[in-house]
Amino acid sequence: MSYYIGIDVGGTTIKGAIIDSAGKLYGEDSVVTGKGEEIVKGIAAVCGRLIALIGKGEKIVGVGIGCAGVIDGENGVVAQANNLQLKNFPLAKKVEERVHLPVKITNDANAAALGEAKFGAGKEYRDSILVTLGTGVGGGVVIDGKLFEGNKSAGAELGHMVIERGGNRCSCGRRGCFEAYSSATALIKRTKWAMEEDVSSAMWQSCTSDTAKGRTAFDYADTDIAAHEVVEWYIKYLACGLVNLANIFRPQIIMLGGGVSNQGENLTVPLQQILDREVFAGFYAPVKVATATLGSKAGAFGAAALWID
Amino acid sequence: MSYYIGIDVGGTTIKGAIIDSAGKLYGEDSVVTGKGEEIVKGIAAVCGRLIALIGKGEKIVGVGIGCAGVIDGENGVVAQANNLQLKNFPLAKKVEERVHLPVKITNDANAAALGEAKFGAGKEYRDSILVTLGTGVGGGVVIDGKLFEGNKSAGAELGHMVIERGGNRCSCGRRGCFEAYSSATALIKRTKWAMEEDVSSAMWQSCTSDTAKGRTAFDYADTDIAAHEVVEWYIKYLACGLVNLANIFRPQIIMLGGGVSNQGENLTVPLQQILDREVFAGFYAPVKVATATLGSKAGAFGAAALWID
Repeated sequence: MSYYIGIDVGGTTIKGAIIDSAGKLYGEDSVVTGKGEEIVKGIAAVCGRLIALIGKGEKIVGVGIGCAGVIDGENGVVAQANNLQLKNFPLAKKVEERVHLPVKITNDANAAALGEAKFGAGKEYRDSILVTLGTGVGGGVVIDGKLFEGNKSAGAELGHMVIERGGNRCSCGRRGCFEAYSSATALIKRTKWAMEEDVSSAMWQSCTSDTAKGRTAFDYADTDIAAHEVVEWYIKYLACGLVNLANIFRPQIIMLGGGVSNQGENLTVPLQQILDREVFAGFYAPVKVATATLGSKAGAFGAAALWID
Repeated sequence: MSYYIGIDVGGTTIKGAIIDSAGKLYGEDSVVTGKGEEIVKGIAAVCGRLIALIGKGEKIVGVGIGCAGVIDGENGVVAQANNLQLKNFPLAKKVEERVHLPVKITNDANAAALGEAKFGAGKEYRDSILVTLGTGVGGGVVIDGKLFEGNKSAGAELGHMVIERGGNRCSCGRRGCFEAYSSATALIKRTKWAMEEDVSSAMWQSCTSDTAKGRTAFDYADTDIAAHEVVEWYIKYLACGLVNLANIFRPQIIMLGGGVSNQGENLTVPLQQILDREVFAGFYAPVKVATATLGSKAGAFGAAALWID
């Protein structure tokens, strides 16, 4: 029997999981994320406890790490991860020295995409995309069952595709990026704006504009015009980005992850209608839209899957 | 010695070439494109003459065909090609029956991208994109030296990425697609509009607004405000689409083909500046922009390359 360790290095927590090639979970562990070198210690501690869960003599094939930031997977180096205070940091090698197992690394969004593709909503499909609707819009692309990363693993920056030239400012410096409209951040900003514009909106019943959440507009969309408009606005832009990705990559499925994806069919039903109508030659090669299913486990599962064919 | 035949089936001409694995050309041939079954005959005639150019006993590995339309490469079927009057047409099998060589097919834009990647401006790079600026905006994507096609070969529809939501109508039915701004058609439309708006423009010296061409605005851009504005407008949108593609695929090089690419450095110099400034983490993995070099031969060379590892 062979086992695989997956590690998801996020801004606040390092999460680990040990699985088999079918994605069966044998143990989980986590630790608070430190800065710089402490991250290596944290990963080693998590790996150590996961290894201890498995009987001696069992084979652990390798450790996969999904890490926030710009990752040079080919060389095992974190090129830049500001939140983690890592720069040109040979993470794979440093973890190998402590854990005595071979290590592969990738970007955390890519790892999540591979996890969902192998063991989540995409497991029936060869070609899939995960789009995460969180603080930003992240995601990853799996082609023929393999993670697509681009040169120096710098591709698949799906959130930084301009869909409205000259539009809202994005964190990347450009205007009108997909992320500037379809992130939870953008949804909340629009919700606040709509509330402030319409003091009669029912949205004021559950929160102030300071405490509005990604779900606020969805909660009142059936009965309140202002809330309904926010949801329509959000879906319109999200659909625009997804149709673009369908035309560019033509996956069999696009999966939605991140906080906003908890809206489930409130999103997938109208989005599927738009995709069916607007995707280029969609009659010939339709693209399904679905909610991701692994939640916060996707990253660690996908990181482990870097070792699974 | 092994040889490879490449066939480029366009709306007006079927072009063929026979090359070796290094892209050395041993012969070319062409015939007027017929409709439906006549296309099979035309391809067979071209193949026959190319085969005759090579001595008996020499090995011809296979025939690659790049064909306009929606192509199901895996099954060798032209799913739909309106101009050629083909629908669910088993082109590969029909050509095999006549030519007695194995046949692979792909979309004509994909074939051109593979040709430029293997033997043209992209030959030094593993990851490249060809963007053709012609009647529409087409192109293809080569990842790790292999053509990327998406599910049922329906991906890489790079022209049908919305960059200005709600903008100009595109042939695909959506509004604001890259193609609706960066095709030669869009450039000419904008040139006519600028001429009609400014009867003092120097552009009137070479043509009427009815006979304006893709090059008209470029010809007068140095001395005429209206022409300069058209060029600025064109480059701004083209750059927006190219930065998107750089962020999504992160190739090492984006090559420009099609009629408008004859502007050479008039395009590549300002575009490179914008890419260097705007591509996400471009400092880490820069993307070069260059003019394609194979011209109208790219399609046949790339089709042949379907057989070359």
